[in-house]
Amino acid sequence: MRQPKQQRAVETREGILHAAAELFDEMGYAGAGINRILERAGATAGSLYFHFDSKEGLARAVMNRQSERILPLLESQGLQRLVDITLLWSRQLQTDVVLRAGVRLTTEAGILGMGEAATPYAAWVQVMEDCLLAAGDRGELQAGVETAPLAEHLVATCTGMQLLSEAAGNDRADLPQRTQRMWQLLLPGIAVPATVVRLDLDPRRAEALEQSEPVSG
Amino acid sequence: MRQPKQQRAVETREGILHAAAELFDEMGYAGAGINRILERAGATAGSLYFHFDSKEGLARAVMNRQSERILPLLESQGLQRLVDITLLWSRQLQTDVVLRAGVRLTTEAGILGMGEAATPYAAWVQVMEDCLLAAGDRGELQAGVETAPLAEHLVATCTGMQLLSEAAGNDRADLPQRTQRMWQLLLPGIAVPATVVRLDLDPRRAEALEQSEPVSG
Repeated sequence: MRQPKQQRAVETREGILHAAAELFDEMGYAGAGINRILERAGATAGSLYFHFDSKEGLARAVMNRQSERILPLLESQGLQRLVDITLLWSRQLQTDVVLRAGVRLTTEAGILGMGEAATPYAAWVQVMEDCLLAAGDRGELQAGVETAPLAEHLVATCTGMQLLSEAAGNDRADLPQRTQRMWQLLLPGIAVPATVVRLDLDPRRAEALEQSEPVSG
Repeated sequence: MRQPKQQRAVETREGILHAAAELFDEMGYAGAGINRILERAGATAGSLYFHFDSKEGLARAVMNRQSERILPLLESQGLQRLVDITLLWSRQLQTDVVLRAGVRLTTEAGILGMGEAATPYAAWVQVMEDCLLAAGDRGELQAGVETAPLAEHLVATCTGMQLLSEAAGNDRADLPQRTQRMWQLLLPGIAVPATVVRLDLDPRRAEALEQSEPVSG
């Protein structure tokens, strides 16, 4: 039976995006040429330019995919949700090439001054601030905690942790422990005591979350 | 009067290092070609290879210069010294091209997998851990604070903060405020209460330090 046209278009788009992510992850933005991406994807230039207007557009699609690899797996709320986002991110960076490529491209965009550099950071900052606002509504934050600067701080810390973890040359195997430590250090200054003791920071949470089905809605 | 030979050699070496730093800062490791560095420095290939064995050696010299731009200016001790290192660093990144080039090269080394990638991070981790050990001896740290992981965490956070600050496109003008916020968030989880209230986190400290004379010894 032939697939419906729309289904095939989605698969072609995903195939190109995945091939591009593999090459961005391996060799960075500059190193991943269009021809190599087409070869890896087994796609034509026509189909690539039908779905993405340029290599930069393709890179932006990979970068914007980051939070979509994480958020649909989570059911927790407030600060625990924020903890879970970072634990899952720190684990999936080791296994999910699209996420890894997005992080590498975001870092390169920052230091190379690529257009729209701030956007992928801004998207993460927004995701984290939403969790912090919810945490505030739930009474989990100490009085006076400003959510926007704290969200910026968390994104900066996660960015730096994954860079140091990668530079250490162990394929980021220690990133979940670094993430757990970040929360151990930060929580006394931001969360109310009852929340500090209740939150589960164990990196093994991410393993269970990874195997869960996406939550609908 | 002719300069002594040794003095001229030092000046030539510094001139090449400074020209290389300018180009590494502007265009990164890959973009800064040896010929361009020689042109900028007004130096010969012979003198460059007399002082540095390769472009990678030159990059390593720039990276290793980072803490030398900061530490000689400081008189404070323990946690205040650590705070001052980060405040001064966050300010000097805006004005000191050698420091800025060192940070860019370190970040590139991390993501591009350049040889010896971990070294410049490790040097900063050591500087910070030394301060934390001194802080512990002075009774400034809470019981149970592990200095080595905390030093790693601080270097990671500083690395990420400067990347986000740079990506925001304001020439890192907000980096001192980000650094102050880092300490406000972290200190409740690491320092004893008497130290938390005593430490001066005001970014303007860095302005005074910048104008001070290097401390001998």
